[in-house]
Amino acid sequence: MKEIQSSKNTLIKETKKLQQKKYRQQTQSYLLEGFHLIQEAKAASVVLKEVFISQRGLNEWSEWIEANLADYYLVSDEVLKALASQPTPQGMIAVAEMPQEESLDFSGAWLLLDNVQDPGNVGTMIRTADAAGFSGVILGQGSADLYNPKTLRSTQGSLYHLSVQHGELAEIIPQFQQVGSPVLGTALDKEAKDYLAVEKMTDFALVMGNEGQGMSPELLALTDQNLYITIKGQAESLNVAIAAGILMFHLFK
Amino acid sequence: MKEIQSSKNTLIKETKKLQQKKYRQQTQSYLLEGFHLIQEAKAASVVLKEVFISQRGLNEWSEWIEANLADYYLVSDEVLKALASQPTPQGMIAVAEMPQEESLDFSGAWLLLDNVQDPGNVGTMIRTADAAGFSGVILGQGSADLYNPKTLRSTQGSLYHLSVQHGELAEIIPQFQQVGSPVLGTALDKEAKDYLAVEKMTDFALVMGNEGQGMSPELLALTDQNLYITIKGQAESLNVAIAAGILMFHLFK
Repeated sequence: MKEIQSSKNTLIKETKKLQQKKYRQQTQSYLLEGFHLIQEAKAASVVLKEVFISQRGLNEWSEWIEANLADYYLVSDEVLKALASQPTPQGMIAVAEMPQEESLDFSGAWLLLDNVQDPGNVGTMIRTADAAGFSGVILGQGSADLYNPKTLRSTQGSLYHLSVQHGELAEIIPQFQQVGSPVLGTALDKEAKDYLAVEKMTDFALVMGNEGQGMSPELLALTDQNLYITIKGQAESLNVAIAAGILMFHLFK
Repeated sequence: MKEIQSSKNTLIKETKKLQQKKYRQQTQSYLLEGFHLIQEAKAASVVLKEVFISQRGLNEWSEWIEANLADYYLVSDEVLKALASQPTPQGMIAVAEMPQEESLDFSGAWLLLDNVQDPGNVGTMIRTADAAGFSGVILGQGSADLYNPKTLRSTQGSLYHLSVQHGELAEIIPQFQQVGSPVLGTALDKEAKDYLAVEKMTDFALVMGNEGQGMSPELLALTDQNLYITIKGQAESLNVAIAAGILMFHLFK
């Protein structure tokens, strides 16, 4: 254990750069804020390069720290604040290593995100996919960064429970189809089908689109079937994470 | 039309106070940010006491402004920024009058929120209740303020499409039961029932609880039946707005 008091410390200044996506990509590492996420990461054998803990955090989680961390930095509240994205950091921040992406296994149910831009939506959809029993989530181009603090927070740790990968959906959709898994898009067009008319399935991919524009026409053309949710009131649409939740829980057997 | 250039103008300084809940309650008025929400409010005959529009907003929505507003203030971008909760305000901000709460009509499906604290969750649930065809939403004690800018934004205008009221849920639940509408709680206890085992209904109330603690034990004891959603993966729980979406779309006939 070493102590760091000042947010001007070189390691802290370097670590703070991970608040920017560019540095996360360069170093293939990211910040994890709060005990819950760090605990989930550790349980999933994610490599934690550094862990910064405040005195309050040390008092609160001493048993877990002793059992799980070979080393850590005891830091001032000022240092923790400098590293955190939220005004009141939760006593512990870690630098975690990004995983190497595994080769895709197409079995089970998958959620594919086409240009979903809000980090809260992406994180919540990963959490919901986990709860629905999905095998994984694939973030297509234009989707919010998985390692954005808000995305991570919204996942509530579910990113460590199922496969979360990045990919070019136009290439991935045909691969699902090749192994016999239907790919379901979401759209309001005339050829789309009410989701309630679709039988439950075990192996399939569901594609959700951008908050404003929906799925791109290019991807809609590649799917086996497009689905819609009938809206009864005067709302123009559903939030994309809500729509994904309704569809995932309805479709997966 | 009058012009206001400076954010130090007395009217602007007074209006800015509406960013605080205390002043919203004192004056029974609130700020509406952005053309979409203001348009929805106007369409629902909400009284707009003042409307502040930037030059850019004026150019963009001139037709609507002419057809809908008897008067307005042309303001500088600085003024708009001073009134807005978001860093890039959308060209138009209005002061709207809070409605008088109507007497409750218990017919149809209702969503009751017990201490749901996140404004985004509350707003999204109002939007989803609208889309699901619900008659209204009742915000119980401890729930996020309906007139918080984030709540309003998340509703996407749906607060003007269905009845949104405030009330003491411990008093309201028995009133639903008196008119023969079952009240369904949400809990993970042993007596709770899988939501998939419940028949679709037309008249009922669904209660959703706090993000961390769930529904209060007092209210759980008052309900006719409590429901749960089976979680298949390793997620500990669903986001409350997602759970509400799944339940509302499943339960309402």
